[in-house]
Amino acid sequence: MSISPGSTTDRGLEGVVALESRICDIDGSVGHLVYAGYEIDDLARNSTFEDVVYLLWHGELPSRDARQDLSGQLRRTRTVPPSIVDLIDSAPSTASPMAVLRTAVSALGHEDAEVDDPSPEANRRKAIRLAARMPTIVAAISRAQAGKSPLAPHPDLSMAANFLYMLDGRVPGPKAERIFDACLILHAEHGLNASTFAGRVIAATMADMYGAITGAIAALKGPLHGGANLKVKEMLDEIRASGQDVEAYVMGKLARKERIMGFGHRVYKTIDPRATFLREMLSELSAEQGDMSWLDMSSTLMTVMGREKNLHPNVDFFSASVYALLGISGGLFTPIFAMSRVAGWSAHLLEQWDGNRLIRPRAAYVGPANRKISG
Amino acid sequence: MSISPGSTTDRGLEGVVALESRICDIDGSVGHLVYAGYEIDDLARNSTFEDVVYLLWHGELPSRDARQDLSGQLRRTRTVPPSIVDLIDSAPSTASPMAVLRTAVSALGHEDAEVDDPSPEANRRKAIRLAARMPTIVAAISRAQAGKSPLAPHPDLSMAANFLYMLDGRVPGPKAERIFDACLILHAEHGLNASTFAGRVIAATMADMYGAITGAIAALKGPLHGGANLKVKEMLDEIRASGQDVEAYVMGKLARKERIMGFGHRVYKTIDPRATFLREMLSELSAEQGDMSWLDMSSTLMTVMGREKNLHPNVDFFSASVYALLGISGGLFTPIFAMSRVAGWSAHLLEQWDGNRLIRPRAAYVGPANRKISG
Repeated sequence: MSISPGSTTDRGLEGVVALESRICDIDGSVGHLVYAGYEIDDLARNSTFEDVVYLLWHGELPSRDARQDLSGQLRRTRTVPPSIVDLIDSAPSTASPMAVLRTAVSALGHEDAEVDDPSPEANRRKAIRLAARMPTIVAAISRAQAGKSPLAPHPDLSMAANFLYMLDGRVPGPKAERIFDACLILHAEHGLNASTFAGRVIAATMADMYGAITGAIAALKGPLHGGANLKVKEMLDEIRASGQDVEAYVMGKLARKERIMGFGHRVYKTIDPRATFLREMLSELSAEQGDMSWLDMSSTLMTVMGREKNLHPNVDFFSASVYALLGISGGLFTPIFAMSRVAGWSAHLLEQWDGNRLIRPRAAYVGPANRKISG
Repeated sequence: MSISPGSTTDRGLEGVVALESRICDIDGSVGHLVYAGYEIDDLARNSTFEDVVYLLWHGELPSRDARQDLSGQLRRTRTVPPSIVDLIDSAPSTASPMAVLRTAVSALGHEDAEVDDPSPEANRRKAIRLAARMPTIVAAISRAQAGKSPLAPHPDLSMAANFLYMLDGRVPGPKAERIFDACLILHAEHGLNASTFAGRVIAATMADMYGAITGAIAALKGPLHGGANLKVKEMLDEIRASGQDVEAYVMGKLARKERIMGFGHRVYKTIDPRATFLREMLSELSAEQGDMSWLDMSSTLMTVMGREKNLHPNVDFFSASVYALLGISGGLFTPIFAMSRVAGWSAHLLEQWDGNRLIRPRAAYVGPANRKISG
């Protein structure tokens, strides 16, 4: 098989248009991220994660009735079956939280009587159950790895507040809830990234939604995809532990040609709009908690990287500090990304199944030919 | 974002070259399927599944020493951890075997100390463990769903014979072993199909091998991908149960414009070379077992479909009858496909990681623009 001119071989399909979508528009050259027509900044300031979930699934923000309806359904379905709690409790403590999340979501499919019903109505109900239960699973994994039994979801709280509550049993204050809710909004969707694409490739075989989300979680686990804010956190921890001056640390790293985590983005050539918003949140949270250390460290890093490398911070850079101030451990950063992104993943699956077509590119064969075992 | 001319939007990336590969060449116009330079017919006649596993991973057939070495490693690592047996035993009997296989393979990653070691050596060792253990998992699922406890793998048998042994505790005769071994060879690899592509998309994030294989299993579960031979079996069972003449059944179906399963292929425009070989095997097995009913039924179907629709049988068409004669239940057909295809999947993952690049096409945004929540 010869490779035709203009083929995309070995370019990772970069720039190739795989499908049309009504979910998310990204213009990296001007720093725009838009969910179904709404700028991310507008959504983060003026809506809730539940509203954004509705927007991604339906293409419209909810009416007051629709908001109440979805919110009620999400609250009522948060509890996971006991078999899933057992699975999480019996996972080895050495297992990565993302691997346990992947297994638990796959197993959740065993218990869903509608799992193999491909109707749009059944798929919307499954999307609600998945979005409602993934935070419960993530919180249970967090507690299991600390040797603690899981906490039952709180029926009166928003998704953001309930998740923070399930981590340590304390209902968060309004500022923490608001900021964590915004973090969920910021991570809910980002076009045809690797995990979303993996989910759509799986879904296009008419596989079930649990399988497609399981595959998306598997992809998000990859260090080139979901793990970046954890790496930022590790870097910030390293700076704190070293007691070094931040500027000296960065200059040393740059001199040794080592990478500074949380700067630059494959898509955004200017500032990532999510980073701008998160920096503001970090500033508010720092003031409220009377701990300016994360903000100061981040600001210095940002200044030095802008001056030395002309690189802007990305969403991962500030979310690491925000999560640290919210008391969330680094091991949960990627699982939290997943429980937010499941909103976007499921929106893409619903879109894929609405006029489905198998996704199957070609490989150009470049190996040996005409071999024979015996002649 | 406008859609550029010649874009592949809504065509499922059909015909787009996503990458170069040295693993498999398919020329559907002449009915060629070639693994690393060897025709599938040559491999099915003159090699074993273990040899093909080696070929797919290394690009060469094994030397005598290498064959012994790989075969020994595969035999020694067949046993799965007790936690996986528990997981299979506790899965609801209503869960699909493919869903349980997906969960079990994901959970297998929790127990592998090398899971997050991305070195080629560690990945080769993981590929061996996965190929060795998936048959054990599939057999355990089969027995659990029949209310039976699993059988320990037999250390002296080939992969094909051991799998048949683990189903019912009887060591198969040489003819059954040989034919099932050939079935594993025929299903081991098929280029950049949907499950393999899903696995590579996941792997390209540098996710772990268990995650990538889990995603591939999720895709294979889809009715548009892995479930076709089960549908053939259901059709054959329906014909038998109806007591109808085969030709009358087909003509009736065609008159009602209903689909006959197991004919035609997206890739092969002439006869699928795997079908030719399997028909010969079906004929041998039928003679040995003194049961010509499956062969007769299949031959009539083939004749009528050729005459009426000019359509050729595909690999799924004859494998359904072969598996039926081997006493394998329909629910295991797709899991068996997976435990064979893991050879090809893992070969593609090793290839992906050798010079990895993120696989990330674009979506063309076609939704609303410039919406504002307030203001």
